[in-house]
Parts: sequence; structure tokens; C-alpha cells
Amino acid sequence: MADIRIVLCRPSHPGNIGAAARAMKTMGYADLRLVAPERFPAPEAEWMATHAVDVLAAARVHATLHEAIADCAAAFALSARPREWSPQVLQVRAAAAQAANLAAPVAFVFGGESAGLTNDELFACQVLVHIPAVPGSSSLNLAQAVQIVCYELHMATGATVPAMRAEKLATVEDIEGLYGHLVPALEREEVNILRGLLKSLLKK
Amino acid sequence: MADIRIVLCRPSHPGNIGAAARAMKTMGYADLRLVAPERFPAPEAEWMATHAVDVLAAARVHATLHEAIADCAAAFALSARPREWSPQVLQVRAAAAQAANLAAPVAFVFGGESAGLTNDELFACQVLVHIPAVPGSSSLNLAQAVQIVCYELHMATGATVPAMRAEKLATVEDIEGLYGHLVPALEREEVNILRGLLKSLLKK
Repeated sequence: MADIRIVLCRPSHPGNIGAAARAMKTMGYADLRLVAPERFPAPEAEWMATHAVDVLAAARVHATLHEAIADCAAAFALSARPREWSPQVLQVRAAAAQAANLAAPVAFVFGGESAGLTNDELFACQVLVHIPAVPGSSSLNLAQAVQIVCYELHMATGATVPAMRAEKLATVEDIEGLYGHLVPALEREEVNILRGLLKSLLKK
Repeated sequence: MADIRIVLCRPSHPGNIGAAARAMKTMGYADLRLVAPERFPAPEAEWMATHAVDVLAAARVHATLHEAIADCAAAFALSARPREWSPQVLQVRAAAAQAANLAAPVAFVFGGESAGLTNDELFACQVLVHIPAVPGSSSLNLAQAVQIVCYELHMATGATVPAMRAEKLATVEDIEGLYGHLVPALEREEVNILRGLLKSLLKK
């Protein structure tokens, strides 16, 4: 599995740091880096992280993006805004597929809530990642962008279908057919017990 | 494009309703229904909706899930928990592809933050949708689950690549090559002006 790092540059709301940690953990990622966060640690971050406080506690704070990605094989920058000059642009699904094949740490770099990434930060990355959205609509919340990136990475590294019941339920016809077979062999009392039993099973 | 409805059953935190509205709008959806919300309207919902307050203002409140999906061609239930009995199970990507091909309103139904959907609500739906995540990790935040569903629906209905520069940047070698061609024809003063011009273009 790819070694994925999530880097948040200058996040202004601690709650978003916590929500990002939660988003990461749901998809199996734990390497969180914060570049010059406005306020961290902070109680709002812990509230929003819920069961991912361990990811938050292990988060490392850096002074610059350069420092946060120095040991990475590649850095992918998230940006909602088109740029006149930019690195190669990939949609998030294609970027995740590419990142999943790299062995050394791969960073996904997110800008602050209001201004996004600076051009210098963008040029420290090799790929500009775009999350498809409706043109002209407001951009995604920071933690929601982290969630989509981590979800696509999880899908790209082979999410497995859980052990859930995928069979179709018995139809009314199936159940009536079962009654039809059983009823001739049973007394009225036993039929009622059986019907009650099946009914309670279906309810449960 | 598919006619998509997002239904939140018994949401307890108004902030999540607002964040869900924002998530919907980024992907082009606006039909939000709330089944017995604990508190709505509420200021926290508006704060979290940011530019999607129009989606919030148009949201309809229903007493029951049945009422909220009465006119729908199909209802897809989101659930993180495996169930002993359930409708057909699909991963969110496959569910979005199926929903995108239906013309009449299609509902995606989400349970409350703590208890999820009841069995009765689940059985009012035809498909159980699973968002792949790490087994054993805590479940996704409600608004983040809405974000992934809306993102996958947007992808399934043909998200277009934005008009961003997808070409590779000129390499240092390319630029030095350009200098090499130009310099013999220029005076030193003109070379310095050209270098300054290119430098400021790259910075911009």
C-alpha cells in the first residue's frame, strides 16, 4: 500500500484539522502534517476528530511546505482555481491511481481555507489535482476535499467489498410457497406458531 | 442528468445539515429533504452552508421517510453497519452509476449521526449503499458521506475536465534553449529585459 501523507498549509480553523484527521482515519491514513497552522493544538480540532484523536496527536507541525515534503517521492497539490501556469493537471481519481503505485511517501498538499496554495507552494509539487465539481459553485470545504482524496486513494489501493449480505431477500411469493409446502403437514396451531416466528424474524 | 434527492433522517446536529447542503451544491445538487430533524432551521446550519444557503432555504421537512421519498423511482440507503437482512448491497460508485441512468427522482437516504437508519427505513429503500472505508475505523461524518455520494454522482453523470492548462511546463532546459536561440541576436540590455520579463511571468 502507498505511503500517503496529508499536508495542510496554513489551515485557519482548527475544527477543519480535526475533521481532516477523521476523514483520513476512515480511509486508513495517519500521516498528517501541518504547515504553519493558525492555531494548533486546539480543542475544536479534538472535538471534530472524534475517534481520530490519535492521528491528531501524531500530527507534525512544520514551518514550511518544503520541510513537510522534503522526504517525499512526489507531491500532489490540490487546487480549485485554474492557474495560468501550473504543473501537470490530473483529476483526483487519476492522481490517486498514480500515487498508489509509488512506494516512497507521497504527499497530498492542501491550501488554507480562504486563499488556497501560493504559487510557490504549487510549484513545489509535481502534479496539480482537480476535484471535479460544478463550475462557479463555491469550493469544497477543506476536510471534505481531504475526504474525497483519501476515499479515492483507498479505492485505488483496492478497497474490498465488506462481508455483507448481497443476496436478494425472499419475495412474498417465495414465502407463500414455503407455507404451501409446510401447511399440509401441520395442524392449525403449528401453522400459527410458524407464521408468528417468521413474522418476528422478518421484523428483526 | 439524473434528478437526485438527498434525504437526511433525524439529523441531530444542524451544522451537519448545513455542511451537507454545501457538499450537495459543489456537485450540482439542490433537492434536500429532512425527516424529523432535531433542530431546523438553525444558525449553525447557515454558518456551515456558506454559499449554499439557497439549498438550505429550499429544503423541505417531512414527518417520515415514506413521505420524503413517495414520488421517487428508487431509494438508495447509506449504511456503514453490516445487516443480517438487507436489500441489495452496492458500493457507492456502482450505486451512483445505476442512479445516473434513472430519469425520475432518485433518493439517497442517510441516517442520523449516532444510530443511522432504522430497519424500517432501510426496507423502504431498494439498495443498500456502502462507502468503502477501513474496517473497524469509526464511520464517516454525515456531511462527508453526503460529499462522497454527490461526488460519485457528479462523476457518474459525466464530470468534465475544466479548462485548466494540462500541458507540461517548460523545463529549465527548454528555457535555456530559448535563451540560446535569442541571445546571439540581442544586445546585453535586451537580454536582461527579456530575462526579467520571463521571471516575472513565471512568478505570476
